[in-house]
Amino acid sequence: MSSLLEQLIEAFRVLPGVGQKTAQRMAYHVLEREREGGKRLSEALATAIERIGHCVRCRDFSETEVCVTCASAARDAFQLCAVESPADRLAIEQATGYRGLYFILQGRLSPLDGIGPRELGLDQLSMRLAEGEVQELIIATNPTVEGEATAHYLAQLARQHGVRPSRLAHGVPLGGELEYVDRGTLSHAFGSRSEMP
Amino acid sequence: MSSLLEQLIEAFRVLPGVGQKTAQRMAYHVLEREREGGKRLSEALATAIERIGHCVRCRDFSETEVCVTCASAARDAFQLCAVESPADRLAIEQATGYRGLYFILQGRLSPLDGIGPRELGLDQLSMRLAEGEVQELIIATNPTVEGEATAHYLAQLARQHGVRPSRLAHGVPLGGELEYVDRGTLSHAFGSRSEMP
Ligand SMILES: [Zn+2]
Ligand SMILES: [Zn+2]
Repeated sequence: MSSLLEQLIEAFRVLPGVGQKTAQRMAYHVLEREREGGKRLSEALATAIERIGHCVRCRDFSETEVCVTCASAARDAFQLCAVESPADRLAIEQATGYRGLYFILQGRLSPLDGIGPRELGLDQLSMRLAEGEVQELIIATNPTVEGEATAHYLAQLARQHGVRPSRLAHGVPLGGELEYVDRGTLSHAFGSRSEMP
Repeated sequence: MSSLLEQLIEAFRVLPGVGQKTAQRMAYHVLEREREGGKRLSEALATAIERIGHCVRCRDFSETEVCVTCASAARDAFQLCAVESPADRLAIEQATGYRGLYFILQGRLSPLDGIGPRELGLDQLSMRLAEGEVQELIIATNPTVEGEATAHYLAQLARQHGVRPSRLAHGVPLGGELEYVDRGTLSHAFGSRSEMP
């Protein structure tokens, strides 16, 4: 096999969920049918890697010092939503009508991995909350053990600054069937039941 | 969202089987954790697209005029295996002990799509068979309607040049259970049964 082709196949494996077989299929597909698209991908990758950094306000990906969302006058500055990753931020932005601002932790507390408050930018978040503009900190970390621990830490931090912490509701997913919901979720949903009107 | 990021996500969708969600995940993964790997991928793509063409002998991908396999003195020139795609060639090369040469059709006969003998390089294959060195043409097109039609066409071409055509055996896959084998294959395997020694 051409060694440039081998290098291309190997390079594709850097992508998440891409093993040897898929990498081969990608390389062949691009060379057979998508050379123009492949060129665009090559250029988009190089440009993005060189020019996309992090917003100094919210730590989301941004090609400018302050990202478009943080710079927007149309967003409500009294609500701040803390998420673990840019992907979580995007999911909330796309699924909800939320018009407040975000803070991206870029991880969750995980002392064993050396990820503490400093790595999550919590000193920066603390200063932000001290500014007095934020009234509610919506904590949207994932419902994992580490995500919950992070949520508790963030809630304390919020209260220290007189900011109201809130947490996304847990429960049976809309359209979900009870028999397929995991036991922890079901147990929580049952315990958190509310009276019907 | 950063527009460079949007461009990167859009660019990833050129890859086979990659929709919006997967493209997002790839872009975030590269920017968060694999900037070095992403740079390598960008460069490998650009270089491969610029420098990988087709071998003039076998039509496989090659960065040289004649590919490594065709140029090798260690391969048997009396056997030629015709396949539809470079991926099929690679599968045979990796799975079997085949030591002959290949001819990559880069497709199969499909008159409705404007793919005829000329598009598959059959004039070139005809000249190759006329050289007199090839004794067996192993026809490894896929067992689809178009692949079978192509196989019949190739078999005729081989006979015209006094070359023996052969076709890969069909049947129950090794380790396959009868109940999960498709009906066409099972029927063929039954009809092609051979006496046990
Ligand atoms: Zn921002
Ligand atoms: Zn070749």
